[in-house]
Formats: sequence, C-alpha cells, structure tokens
Amino acid sequence: VSESTRAQPGADSAPTIEDVRSAAALLSAVAVPTPVLTSAALDRRTGAAVAIKCENLQRTGSFKFRGAYTALARLGASERERGVIAFSSGNHALAVATAARDHDTTALIVMPADAPAGKLASIADLGARVVTFDRYTDDRFALTARLAAEHGLITIPPFDHPGVIAGAGTTTLEFLEQTGGLDTLVMPLGGGGHLAGAGVVKAAESRATRLVGVETAAGDKTRQSLRAGRRVRIPVPRTIADGVTGEIPGELTFAVNRRLLDDVVVVDDLEILAAMAWLFQETKLVVEPTGALGVAALLAGRVEVSGQRVGVVVSGGNIEPRRFHALTQSVPIRGQDQVVPVDTPT
Amino acid sequence: VSESTRAQPGADSAPTIEDVRSAAALLSAVAVPTPVLTSAALDRRTGAAVAIKCENLQRTGSFKFRGAYTALARLGASERERGVIAFSSGNHALAVATAARDHDTTALIVMPADAPAGKLASIADLGARVVTFDRYTDDRFALTARLAAEHGLITIPPFDHPGVIAGAGTTTLEFLEQTGGLDTLVMPLGGGGHLAGAGVVKAAESRATRLVGVETAAGDKTRQSLRAGRRVRIPVPRTIADGVTGEIPGELTFAVNRRLLDDVVVVDDLEILAAMAWLFQETKLVVEPTGALGVAALLAGRVEVSGQRVGVVVSGGNIEPRRFHALTQSVPIRGQDQVVPVDTPT
Repeated sequence: VSESTRAQPGADSAPTIEDVRSAAALLSAVAVPTPVLTSAALDRRTGAAVAIKCENLQRTGSFKFRGAYTALARLGASERERGVIAFSSGNHALAVATAARDHDTTALIVMPADAPAGKLASIADLGARVVTFDRYTDDRFALTARLAAEHGLITIPPFDHPGVIAGAGTTTLEFLEQTGGLDTLVMPLGGGGHLAGAGVVKAAESRATRLVGVETAAGDKTRQSLRAGRRVRIPVPRTIADGVTGEIPGELTFAVNRRLLDDVVVVDDLEILAAMAWLFQETKLVVEPTGALGVAALLAGRVEVSGQRVGVVVSGGNIEPRRFHALTQSVPIRGQDQVVPVDTPT
Repeated sequence: VSESTRAQPGADSAPTIEDVRSAAALLSAVAVPTPVLTSAALDRRTGAAVAIKCENLQRTGSFKFRGAYTALARLGASERERGVIAFSSGNHALAVATAARDHDTTALIVMPADAPAGKLASIADLGARVVTFDRYTDDRFALTARLAAEHGLITIPPFDHPGVIAGAGTTTLEFLEQTGGLDTLVMPLGGGGHLAGAGVVKAAESRATRLVGVETAAGDKTRQSLRAGRRVRIPVPRTIADGVTGEIPGELTFAVNRRLLDDVVVVDDLEILAAMAWLFQETKLVVEPTGALGVAALLAGRVEVSGQRVGVVVSGGNIEPRRFHALTQSVPIRGQDQVVPVDTPT
C-alpha cells in the first residue's frame, strides 16, 4: 500500500494520484485527449521548447469538463438522480450541464447576468435551467446554497472539490505523457483547481517539474495568499479574463497549492489580448481571455524558461467571434502595418 | 513487385502509393501529424460520425507544406543549391519558403499583389524574395517561367507535380490511419493536388472510400472539366476563397482525379463564411475561406453522408484576425440574438 492510499480521503481531502488516475480512466471514454501543438515562433520568442496543450479543444470548449464529469460520476445513484446545481462564470456551467446530460440527470446553473449570450444559449441548448445573479452585488454562494436546499440538489463546485480537482489533474497527467516530461508547466490560475490537480500529479510523478500559475494583475488572490501564508480575500477583480474573477482561493485548492505551486506570475489585460491575437495568427486557435493567461505570461517574458522543456496549457476557447474582435481589434498585428520588401517585375 | 511499382514513374507521371509512403516517412520528422477532432454539433447536423482533419494546424498553417517539402527533398543537391521559385496565392508560397529554409536554399516567390499583408510579411520573415503580379491581368505562368530562366531557379509548382501530389497524399494516408477508415472523405478542391494525392491513397488502400471535392460556385473548374471529359478553362473566379482562384485543373492532377474523384459539389461565398464562423464558435479553430470549403459543404447539406463515417479536411488557417472579422461579422451567430429562458432569483 503506497503512502498516498493509506489514508482514505474524505470528501474534504485533497485527491490522491490514484484519484487522478481513476478519473483519467473514466474520462478516456468521454473526454478528448486534447492535442499538443508546438510553435517555432513561440520557441524563438522564449528560447525554450514549448508544448501547447489545447484544452480549448476539449469537450465543452474548456478543461472544466474533466472535473465536472468526474464529480458527477462519483456521486451515488440516488444523489445523482436528485439533480445537480452549479454556479459559474461560464465554462464550469457548460461542463456541468454537459456532464449532467451525459449522466441522464438535470442541472440548474447559477450564472452571472452579464455572462456572454452565447454561453447562456449553450447552457439552455443542453437542457439545463439557468438562474442569473449580479456578479458585483449578489452573494452567489448564498444563492446557490438556498436553491440547492430548496430543490434538494447536489452542488458541484467549480474547483474546491476533490472530484473536480482529480478530474482537472488529468490534464497534467496526459500532458506529461504526451511530452515525455516538462521542466516547467505554466497554467492559468483561477480558483486553483487545475493547478491543484497538477500539483497532485507533480508530487507523485514529476517532482522536478516547476509549476507556475498565471493570474491577472487585478486578481492576484493566490499570489497574495501565498505571500500572506493564508487565504486572502480580494475585491472582485475587474478584468477581461471572465473565468478568473473569484475573490479568494479555494480551501482545498490552496492547501495543495501552498505546498506544490512553485511560482505565481501576473499579466495585465493588454498582455492577454496580445496573446489572444498571437494565438489566432500563429497557431490558428481561438482562445478566450482566461485561456490565454499562460501564453500571455510566456510572450511577456514573465517566466524564466530559456533552454527548458516548457508546457503551457490553453485552458478554454469559449468566446464569440464578435467579442473576440471587439477585444483584439486594437492589438497590433504583424504584417498589417509592416513594410515588406517586394520586387515588381520589369 | 506490385503493379504500381512495375513502371518507374517519370517527372510527369502521377505518383504511386510508394511515393506517398516515402513522402510520409520523410515528413514524419518535419511535419505535424495534425490532430483529428470531432464535434457533437456537426454529427447532429449531418447525421454522420464526422472526423475533422486539422491541416490548419500544420506547419506554415496549411497542408501545402507537405507537398512543397516533399518536392524540395526530391531535388538533386545541385538543383536544390540553385534555389527555387514558386507562384502562389499564399499558402504554397509560405510552404515553399519554409521548405527552402529547411533545406538551406533560397526561394523566390511570385505572389498576387493583393495577397493579404500578413502572408507577404511572413514570406519575407522566412528570408524569401517576393515578386508581385496582378492576378487579373498578368500571366503568372509566363512571369514565373521568365524569372526561373533568368535566375536559373527550379520551379516548384503549387499542385501539378508528382512530388507535390505525393506529399499532399500523406494527409489522407494519415487521416485513414487516425480514423481507422472512412466511408466518405470531403476536401477543398483547388488545383487538385490534395485530392489527387487522396486518389492515389484511395486506389491503393481504401477503394470503398468515396472522395468528394468541394469547389466554389464561381470557380467550379474541375466539376466542369469532369462533365466535359477534358480540362476546361474558366474565367478567373471572383470568390473570397483566395486559395482556389485558378482557371484550369492541373494536367497531372486532372488525370488522377477523373479516374478517382467520385463527386464534386459547390458552395457559395455565404456558405463559406457561415462555415468559418461555425468553426470558430463550435471547434475553436481559425480557418481561412478556402480551408472551410469541406465543412461548408457538410453544413449546407451538399454531400449525402447520413449514417456514414465521414472525414473532412480543414486545409488551411492563414487569415488575419481583422480580415476574419470583416468577412464573418454579418454571419448570424447562435446566442447573440437568441432569447434564453432565464430565471431570476426572488
């Protein structure tokens, strides 16, 4: 019996590597083993060998499906039958609604009223019910708890849950297998579930891999919390990265991340937009603001990676064409304003 | 000795399956084994199990790298040293410039003066020289021939060349391996090299696969040629699909395609734009107009595929964000104008 299986984890304990492995086995039938791309241009910019893990090509358009599906699968049959409830800025909502449909149960989704219309429409298409809240005034936790109690629903939290973290960890398990090993792994950092999952995998399988989380400059709750040595609550950050607008790291996720996360760096909104435009142009990938945090940090030179094998996760691509354009239209694009030496035939 | 190897093919003969296989071996070290994606939404729309082959994620942003690299690799050392010349609306140019750099030789690229600025800039970044022509008045064939003679350069044609066709055939070889077999394979159809390569693979390995080429309604040169039983020259088509504006099918490619291409369907520019917007929203892929022809045909119901295993090739993604937006901004996007049932908490 290995050390990690000796103690049976309870519902409030961090998952073990075995939990991540069993999530990977479960997901192998339903999730996309997302492709890993490389970019000569990114390698030149960073002086590293960079592998890009495309979780924007995951089912539901983000890595969130991994955690939501795993959490629903781990429910008992009678719990699952009652239906589930989730609050989310969008991607977790899509993931829970899809996982609920996969499991033949119902989902009630609590969403910010200003979530992109396309996300609301997709949720409704999946057969879920939607309740909206004001992201700057309502207490979404209290609202979700009240609705859960009233309707007897099981809450599937977006990150602070062992099943969700175990599912999220499968991204890293898969990425390490696909690349054969990484010196540094750079990922967007929101509530901390994706990185906590990465930490569990790192601790068991790849101790030497440096884990770097990327936050927005306006929403560096985990950076502040790590410095303070405890979970720090920040004001709701105003940023274009609508997937990482939480005020405080998760309890479970922070417990893992304070042990296993090696560094947190930040990028500002303009750097995120530049990364989105760069990803569009150079890699042909549609990436939403939050999904581009890792690449933004690499392009801005915020992580020391020269000479290394680097992995960066693109975590989601749920953005409508019009919003993508509205956000990125003022980013300078190579070629548009560049003078190219051209010969005219004479 | 198999039938296909008995006759040694000359420079003007269609490639054999062995040529495609040796191209695949050559490319395994330098090209991307491009991912294959699925989309539940596309499966629902078509009633088929559709696999999407992402050649927009190929090196240089399109499948053209496969053929250009193969053609350059097959040159003798002394030929290659002289340098190469190519005319192209963009993707073949990027491919030849990149393959020339890979082979430590020089490239002269003859491009339409109205090619996207980003493509011109990328060519220059690769160290190639650029000469421009007017796509509606100049004879690009004569211009290329003159420049080749003057500078002693080897011409790498965009499609009508056995090495280019052999390289292009590797897309299909790879796609059949990745999917385990296809009932119908749908691909954009320009000069005919990609489909001729597919035909060579089909004839040797997958006789029952139906090959369908997709042209623009304004530029259906192969459809007309197949009906006439000979190569038909059409006026330069005016279409947003800037990769398929040729006037006549290739000689070699048509010789293969008249035997092995099962059907040609057409789509109009609005159907192409709808497919580009759909691919952005549903698959998170940036696809240029020509690259979206196959998906456009499926979305428009132009190919009978119900109940089948269908492959569709997305052949390129070289389009700038601003042009993408300018083209697709009037396409209705799901969610933008849709009324979503939402409960407000009380």
